[in-house]
Amino acid sequence: MDLPDYSDIEAAAVLLRPVSVLTPLLEAPLLNELVGGRVLVKAEVLQRTGSFKFRGAFNRVSRMTADERARGVICFSSGNHAQGVAAAAAMCGTSALIVMPTTAPRIKVERCRALGAEIILHDGDRQSMEQRTEHLAGSRGLTLVRPFDDRYVIAGQGTIGLEISAQAEALQATPAAVLVPCSGGGLTAGIGLALERRLPGTALYTVEPASFDDTARSLAAGERVANVAGGRTICDALLVPQPGEITFAINRRLVRAGLSVTDDDAMTAMLVAFEHLKIVLEPSGAAGLAALLARRFDGRNKTTIIIASGGNVDAARFQEALAHPAMPRAATAD
Amino acid sequence: MDLPDYSDIEAAAVLLRPVSVLTPLLEAPLLNELVGGRVLVKAEVLQRTGSFKFRGAFNRVSRMTADERARGVICFSSGNHAQGVAAAAAMCGTSALIVMPTTAPRIKVERCRALGAEIILHDGDRQSMEQRTEHLAGSRGLTLVRPFDDRYVIAGQGTIGLEISAQAEALQATPAAVLVPCSGGGLTAGIGLALERRLPGTALYTVEPASFDDTARSLAAGERVANVAGGRTICDALLVPQPGEITFAINRRLVRAGLSVTDDDAMTAMLVAFEHLKIVLEPSGAAGLAALLARRFDGRNKTTIIIASGGNVDAARFQEALAHPAMPRAATAD
Repeated sequence: MDLPDYSDIEAAAVLLRPVSVLTPLLEAPLLNELVGGRVLVKAEVLQRTGSFKFRGAFNRVSRMTADERARGVICFSSGNHAQGVAAAAAMCGTSALIVMPTTAPRIKVERCRALGAEIILHDGDRQSMEQRTEHLAGSRGLTLVRPFDDRYVIAGQGTIGLEISAQAEALQATPAAVLVPCSGGGLTAGIGLALERRLPGTALYTVEPASFDDTARSLAAGERVANVAGGRTICDALLVPQPGEITFAINRRLVRAGLSVTDDDAMTAMLVAFEHLKIVLEPSGAAGLAALLARRFDGRNKTTIIIASGGNVDAARFQEALAHPAMPRAATAD
Repeated sequence: MDLPDYSDIEAAAVLLRPVSVLTPLLEAPLLNELVGGRVLVKAEVLQRTGSFKFRGAFNRVSRMTADERARGVICFSSGNHAQGVAAAAAMCGTSALIVMPTTAPRIKVERCRALGAEIILHDGDRQSMEQRTEHLAGSRGLTLVRPFDDRYVIAGQGTIGLEISAQAEALQATPAAVLVPCSGGGLTAGIGLALERRLPGTALYTVEPASFDDTARSLAAGERVANVAGGRTICDALLVPQPGEITFAINRRLVRAGLSVTDDDAMTAMLVAFEHLKIVLEPSGAAGLAALLARRFDGRNKTTIIIASGGNVDAARFQEALAHPAMPRAATAD
């Protein structure tokens, strides 16, 4: 396995600095009050393409040779990785072919097209989508940019960990924990590698939808186990059937435990982020905040960092969240 | 008149650095495409209390003497200045009494209370609200923090101008214009003083609701003129009846012209910011972007900086914006 290490993240940071957004680590006193502790939210919704995925994609695509660039890149994705790859490809002067499920949110499909990518909508399960993508890559000589099981993709996502440690220090904060929305585990692995060096006392937690908690169960079992088929969730970016091989090799060592949230928890978190942070979260991107608000992790009397990983949500879904019953007021009351 | 100058802004920046958010200057390729030029959005919705008003309020409140602090501060405001003062008062260890109109959005009133301020809801016009506040300040010995006609308040808002110039330089951008939502003119005056020194080639424009365009008409007339009574707008933070005395003395020299937008323009801008920038704008905070999207200012083939000044909007109003008919697609097509 081609495992990334800390130096890969430092190298990615140098590449990404001029092209990525140094996203703010936001704090809202009234959110702190609601949780009963200090909450710092890394607003990756403000990243290029509306999610953290741009980091890993650019770190991979920008390293392609001139010959590879002349042929183009390909990827499969429900939408956020796709947008990251599409944007990176456009910036690096190469073409992007993207295979997306027919169930992907409209906004994500449109956004990829607007970024200049060619889209193939795939009607079938994830495994068949992956196989089709691999076949296309082979037959057309395209470079396949995997969504998480890739050294450079993981290193790119890890730059968030470098930024967090510097930003927390500037705020004189000593975070007890970092909560990361988790699908294949690339974001978690990258952040974990960065924090191991820069904030070694901080506990790392993954957060998944309750019916897609393969990472939580894999961590508990000590080996990779897959999701039970038939689960449903509005968290469309967190549907990967099992942890990646590379990512799990890292995460089993660095993650304290896996948490899970319901769709209802995610909707509440979207509303709270709207009210107190003024940022737009998609359900998947709200999972970390959801775990904290629903007390899957007890944030009282400590500092917790939340990764707000993406904001690509259709207006109709966001309207639903705005109409969602609000949080009970004072978390400190009990 | 006690006019602020550039050195007041530099001094404010030193005071504000450890307590304020260095808000990002956001860019979205698809927004650029929509406008046909480069658009950089200063996301002051991510500032403490959800608007730029915290800057000026803190710069004023933190300079109070121990004796003044023991008695407390007072202000009148429809909500954003109120929240800025309430937060600054809490941070500086003094009490805040805030007079708000009964028509202020619920979220703004609640937020001030949650920040520990005492609220008086005033049922009457702005002039009577101001008189009541002045009377209370005198009788109770409270320090009145004016919303715009104050040297330190203007200097605090001006720190946005310092940040913009550094951020634009980092992005290798040479902005042709800055569009600023305008009510009493404090934000515009502060930014204008900073840009005069730091980005002297940049044209400064105010943006107001069409039926509250006192600054535009005052600039055209060369003297302060008031709004015609009876106007209506959803831009609840931009209702000041006429430009401030201090602010107009600065703005008549530094502002190129005054633009105006309709409520419909503001709603469209809220939707576009949701889709492309992942930030929550209130109608007033969306005025700058609205002017650009509605072509009150032609942003094609140039770089325009937009001040996104506030995001304190009720969920119901935001839902309306999400249901608003979208922009025609390609601004570049004509």
